[in-house]
Amino acid sequence: MSLVVVGTMAFDAIETPFGKTDKIIGGSATYVAYTASNFIKDVQQVSIVGYDYPQEELDDLSARGVDLAGVEIVPDKKSFFWSGRYHMDMNTRDTLVTDLNVLADFNPVLPEAYRDAEFVMLGNLVPKIQQSVIQQMNKRPKLIVMDTMNFWMEVAMDDLKVTLSMVDVLLINDSEARQLSGEFSLVKAAKKILTMGPKYLIIKKGEHGALLFHGNDVFFAPALPLEEVFDPTGAGDTFAGGFIGHLAKTKDISFENMKTAIIVGSAMASYCVEKFGAERLKEITRADIDARLNEFVQLVSFDITLA
Amino acid sequence: MSLVVVGTMAFDAIETPFGKTDKIIGGSATYVAYTASNFIKDVQQVSIVGYDYPQEELDDLSARGVDLAGVEIVPDKKSFFWSGRYHMDMNTRDTLVTDLNVLADFNPVLPEAYRDAEFVMLGNLVPKIQQSVIQQMNKRPKLIVMDTMNFWMEVAMDDLKVTLSMVDVLLINDSEARQLSGEFSLVKAAKKILTMGPKYLIIKKGEHGALLFHGNDVFFAPALPLEEVFDPTGAGDTFAGGFIGHLAKTKDISFENMKTAIIVGSAMASYCVEKFGAERLKEITRADIDARLNEFVQLVSFDITLA
Repeated sequence: MSLVVVGTMAFDAIETPFGKTDKIIGGSATYVAYTASNFIKDVQQVSIVGYDYPQEELDDLSARGVDLAGVEIVPDKKSFFWSGRYHMDMNTRDTLVTDLNVLADFNPVLPEAYRDAEFVMLGNLVPKIQQSVIQQMNKRPKLIVMDTMNFWMEVAMDDLKVTLSMVDVLLINDSEARQLSGEFSLVKAAKKILTMGPKYLIIKKGEHGALLFHGNDVFFAPALPLEEVFDPTGAGDTFAGGFIGHLAKTKDISFENMKTAIIVGSAMASYCVEKFGAERLKEITRADIDARLNEFVQLVSFDITLA
Repeated sequence: MSLVVVGTMAFDAIETPFGKTDKIIGGSATYVAYTASNFIKDVQQVSIVGYDYPQEELDDLSARGVDLAGVEIVPDKKSFFWSGRYHMDMNTRDTLVTDLNVLADFNPVLPEAYRDAEFVMLGNLVPKIQQSVIQQMNKRPKLIVMDTMNFWMEVAMDDLKVTLSMVDVLLINDSEARQLSGEFSLVKAAKKILTMGPKYLIIKKGEHGALLFHGNDVFFAPALPLEEVFDPTGAGDTFAGGFIGHLAKTKDISFENMKTAIIVGSAMASYCVEKFGAERLKEITRADIDARLNEFVQLVSFDITLA
């Protein structure tokens, strides 16, 4: 059961109240691939990097079974670079630098072997690029999940609406859901967004957990209460990687299994934030993942015997 | 199994983005009593009101089995009055008016019949008054739950620390937990607060749910995602009333049963916010409560089969 992952592979420089990094490896597709590869081996990566992208990072992904045939290496340009500084609450951040570099030319052509994938994860990208990927598939995938951001709502809303009409699951945060719908109440926002195309909507609320909406059903997954959030960068992409990784592994896209997938995504995200960048994701084992999943079960289990 | 409830019975005037009330009935003990009386009949109310407090409101509580022997009626003063305006997010509000009136003289003397109660709910009040109530009990109650607020941390921290050392469960919101502990992380805040006296700490996060801490255990209860929060006034006291009402009904103060009690509190609070003041609480039936509890079960149930 193969999974096509489309997104950025990039350098990030991060400042938090707890520390600071020089350029480290980041990008949405990096986080999704490191995470999803814990669950399935057929991750087919679609991205673009420059001459400066470290070969050992590509080797690391290959060693985890990630297929890099869809990753274009541009010999005369630098990789995408982002730099940001988090505020004390770790929920808000300022962007210091955005150097698109190779990303300005990103026009992915899917290798033939990718075009029959049953699962597609579209990281946050120009909506037209997301559409182009879907159009290159030989048949409609079993499940298409997309991320996006407020920037595209401001500069490319018409394109974004077209992409929305082509996908199954939209993954956004609470402020993006409010902006996309024009509704403050997340329940009302969800109702509107579910008329735009996606049959499932996941609203991520950071430390406050995530909500899954489908028809009139709603499911809530908490975030694990942590002593310290060291670096939130990539937590949303890690969540996405755990979510779609679990679904692709189990081949079950029912609402019930999506609930489990969200818990898996939340567990993976809770590891991501423990160290800078994807560092922690590279270390954890299947036993670590199971231990964390068990913490989620403990966190929300209760017994109600209706009188 | 009797429950002593200590707190205010008051008038509130409320403005929200959705509407405005003149003086309506409010006060912490009012919300606790309306809620807890769904679960147990022996609610023993301790409060103070003025000549202007409507007799029919007192009759309403009596009809629900609430014992008002501990409610002092001051013939020549007005009842406590609070007025506030909520912001669009409904999580923040400005206080417009606080007229203490009778509350300035509140020095509760517990009727003899109250002094053997096994459960005590101390609403947000001057910490010395909370202490005085505990000291009037004939024997140490099975469970003492207290609420407080940031104001007492600023003007009466030493007294507050004494009260904290005398109770079992502290119920506060996230900003109060941060202020009391000096820690931003709620997990770190909880560890510190649990050394101050309470063996259980509940941190209320409004629309983001509530956390229960005990030793190294933690439980998370979501808030029900609602289309509209009409008026959040009293939601915290309603939560407290559901929590202690369930515990007093079941006479079981184990951590496991506290989890259930928090879900009961959350369900009751989700009704409270649907109308102004305590209006909705006066209407709901046992069947309504069960239906809402079932929604909570649906909201967080998931199946994890560890690989």
